[in-house]
Amino acid sequence: MPASPSGHGTSRSRSWWGWGYADAHPDDAECIAMGALLPGTLARPLPIPRVADLSMPRPGVTPPPALTHLLTADPDVRAAHAMGKAYRDIIRALRGRPGRIPDLVARPTDDREVSDLLDWAGGQGVAVIPFGGGSSVVGGVEYRGDTHRAVLSLDLTSMDRVLEIDTAGRSARIQAGALGPVLEEQLRPHGVTLRHFPQSFEFSTLGGWLATRAGGHYATGRTHIDDFVQSLRVVTPAGSGASWRLPASGAGPSPDRMFLGSEGALGVITEAWMRLQERPRHRASASVAFTGFRPALEAVRAIAQSDLSPANCRLLDPGEALLSGASHDGSSVLILGFESATSRVDDRLASALELARAHGGRGGTPSADRDSPADAAVSAWRSVFLRMPYLRDGLARMGAVVDTFETAATWDRVPALIDAVRTEVGSAASKATGHPATVNCRLTHVYPDGAAPYFTVAVAGRPGDEVRIWDDIKAAASDVLHRYRATITHHHAVGRDHRPGYDLQRPDPFALALRAAKDALDPRRILNPGVLID
Amino acid sequence: MPASPSGHGTSRSRSWWGWGYADAHPDDAECIAMGALLPGTLARPLPIPRVADLSMPRPGVTPPPALTHLLTADPDVRAAHAMGKAYRDIIRALRGRPGRIPDLVARPTDDREVSDLLDWAGGQGVAVIPFGGGSSVVGGVEYRGDTHRAVLSLDLTSMDRVLEIDTAGRSARIQAGALGPVLEEQLRPHGVTLRHFPQSFEFSTLGGWLATRAGGHYATGRTHIDDFVQSLRVVTPAGSGASWRLPASGAGPSPDRMFLGSEGALGVITEAWMRLQERPRHRASASVAFTGFRPALEAVRAIAQSDLSPANCRLLDPGEALLSGASHDGSSVLILGFESATSRVDDRLASALELARAHGGRGGTPSADRDSPADAAVSAWRSVFLRMPYLRDGLARMGAVVDTFETAATWDRVPALIDAVRTEVGSAASKATGHPATVNCRLTHVYPDGAAPYFTVAVAGRPGDEVRIWDDIKAAASDVLHRYRATITHHHAVGRDHRPGYDLQRPDPFALALRAAKDALDPRRILNPGVLID
Repeated sequence: MPASPSGHGTSRSRSWWGWGYADAHPDDAECIAMGALLPGTLARPLPIPRVADLSMPRPGVTPPPALTHLLTADPDVRAAHAMGKAYRDIIRALRGRPGRIPDLVARPTDDREVSDLLDWAGGQGVAVIPFGGGSSVVGGVEYRGDTHRAVLSLDLTSMDRVLEIDTAGRSARIQAGALGPVLEEQLRPHGVTLRHFPQSFEFSTLGGWLATRAGGHYATGRTHIDDFVQSLRVVTPAGSGASWRLPASGAGPSPDRMFLGSEGALGVITEAWMRLQERPRHRASASVAFTGFRPALEAVRAIAQSDLSPANCRLLDPGEALLSGASHDGSSVLILGFESATSRVDDRLASALELARAHGGRGGTPSADRDSPADAAVSAWRSVFLRMPYLRDGLARMGAVVDTFETAATWDRVPALIDAVRTEVGSAASKATGHPATVNCRLTHVYPDGAAPYFTVAVAGRPGDEVRIWDDIKAAASDVLHRYRATITHHHAVGRDHRPGYDLQRPDPFALALRAAKDALDPRRILNPGVLID
Repeated sequence: MPASPSGHGTSRSRSWWGWGYADAHPDDAECIAMGALLPGTLARPLPIPRVADLSMPRPGVTPPPALTHLLTADPDVRAAHAMGKAYRDIIRALRGRPGRIPDLVARPTDDREVSDLLDWAGGQGVAVIPFGGGSSVVGGVEYRGDTHRAVLSLDLTSMDRVLEIDTAGRSARIQAGALGPVLEEQLRPHGVTLRHFPQSFEFSTLGGWLATRAGGHYATGRTHIDDFVQSLRVVTPAGSGASWRLPASGAGPSPDRMFLGSEGALGVITEAWMRLQERPRHRASASVAFTGFRPALEAVRAIAQSDLSPANCRLLDPGEALLSGASHDGSSVLILGFESATSRVDDRLASALELARAHGGRGGTPSADRDSPADAAVSAWRSVFLRMPYLRDGLARMGAVVDTFETAATWDRVPALIDAVRTEVGSAASKATGHPATVNCRLTHVYPDGAAPYFTVAVAGRPGDEVRIWDDIKAAASDVLHRYRATITHHHAVGRDHRPGYDLQRPDPFALALRAAKDALDPRRILNPGVLID
């Protein structure tokens, strides 16, 4: 096992206001170059904000001596825990008006300390915001109320160990605060992997994935983190407990599913036994171009309804394909990838390519394994994927309003839904800004019964008005999603930003059950107030 | 769509006291022949019980005129709704001491009528037991309390229609009261199938499967009915609602998972959009014999951890293999089956056989499709599988104590768990009866991280003492399961019989949440009192 607790495998410093590593942000010249592509943006980037310029009141509460070693009021740490990493958060930081900065940040190292912190916070009326990697893009880790005496950010990243590995049963007990690379690094020597690689992989934790039902690596089949959970341990203000390690069970409603997606509102997930995979030994990938987006959708549906199970099956519309360099001629591009630890996958790729071609797909020379020169579109896509949030922040510095949102719907609604989002969200963005807007779409995950479209919106903003503009855009998006009965979120979670859409979507009997569960587990209403329920 | 509502596709009459169709029960001669195999059983079978001999009080409550057309107090109907079909239920009927017979049986035809019945029952303090096919083997459909004024069995089988089919998205909206054959018959013309074939397929309903998290056809991968649910509609005493049709969602804890497995205690599931499959066009199956059970377990683990995904992967121990005719030489037998709608499966079968042989498996000539003469062991198994519960009832008439129970555990515990069950349950059965006991085991479902062992216990009983003997046997079984942290049920559900084991297994925070949900949705505590929670 790796040496240092909380050794995140890197000494690179994280940005307090923007995505990821501070040294990975585009420099001013790159920002200006990007801004030039979006009419109406600023001539020069907004300056990088400084913690020293923030107005940061002294903590509104004094912790007891028994807890002080777990707590800090360091301004840099407090600032880095004030918000997540949505565009809405980035622009507020750039404009020097971040959300409510937590009074204190706690870094517990075990369940007992989590429990002690909850006890103290409950007694004092202190709101507790569980915090993993802080990569929420839905307002999941900030305080927006005014009914608590103080706000405590509960940072779990000191609990980042893989505690046990069962290689025969391919599973491991992992602490919730482990960031993606930290847990994979500990699994690697055992030849196993969780293979959960969201875009935020480097900057999000197992606990965060579990609490938000993150969507991961696999584009088909089991991809939400939910399906990889063998058991969960949770600490709540009303007590703690763990489910048994079971491969499957029919004993009552699944206890784990009550806490998966609970976003810190019902309890703090402190560890989980997770189902692992062997590392893949066979891979093959290819990309296919389509003249029209509709035939491409049909090809993807055919592949999703086959039993071929591609690990990657991402369809880029012409705008996404252009931005990522996967195509330059207005084609839509389907990225296909297969992997297996036990058998060759060339046949599966060949069958998928056959289905794609039957729907008008062109190209698709397979690259048989990762060491051979991969298909150019596949590599282009891979390299841009992880850089995208950094580019978004660069554009934000140029005064652009730019972010993503995602959904899922059944196939019968997907084509019209995508058209409606393009039209209505594009029009809302232009109306709010007076500038032309770009709305691009890709499918990130596909299922036999539907797909998960992912949208990127970009438009030049009006200085100082960006948050309101984004909120208008998002309201238009939510309106379309609701009309098409498309989920308010496929894997970004609800947080505070998605509450109106979530409240409309959630069935009434479940809302009653959830509120009752909240009352029972968090009777003082200190846990992440405002997410999911009031 | 088929013509008659509630036309169950057959005119055969159901047994009120025993499994399935009355005309499928073994006759006296067959019972005597079976009894001869189990030392200490009776010389002649117990007579088939008659409803006319039951003491059946008049209903303790009078329904309002607006509801009378939905209700019956017919003695035959009431008797048929008094219990499920566990051995415990069969023997109580044979001994003329069935559980509390419901005062009335309701057959609503839509959500509104379900809701009206709940309103009336709530106002009158009448317990409501949702009832599908009545095939519960865990005391899930009987009343055991004494705090309600009367008992209403809520039979959903008049709500048995497939209401909509989305062939592009391979899903259908199906009423909860549809028995297996009834719903498959309505799907067949559209070329689709739910492919959920529990042993009780003919005598259980979609709603029953959903409320108990039934395990189905597939031996690997997604097999619990949970994974095939796109959305659910529930009627509760506190209101009704439906989740949206979604291929996937990350919006809060899954609302459906709260009601899946809720066993009628939180609400009545009245319909669901279910994910369907195309009918398979390619099949291949084979059986492999193993000299030892342990190497066979290793073979099965290797197959479960491959990406071969057999539809059938059932391992029979020597006793199970002998009883089903799959082997006669003390071998364990692994039944393998593959199926696909889109591609040939011979290669997958060949790879699985290779893994089996690497662990000492013998034989395994593939039978490439269903029309060719299948491997003898595969056919033998198939034909015995559906007849087993009838044979159990025949043995019960011979005074045997005989039933099954099942569980699931991670691979690290499976071998020792199976040994401990054999030893301790066998010894408890012998001790309780003074007769030698048989304990056989098969694996019904396997996962990368564990397996679901299924046990059959048979021992000659002591006349009049059978229920207590079975309860002793079951207590010994629960004790072993608890010690090995194996679930109290993989797919039979909790009901009333599994409550002690379930209460020990359920994590405390979830117990609090579940009780709170119950209070919120069923404040008068009329819904299936005694299952899951008090």
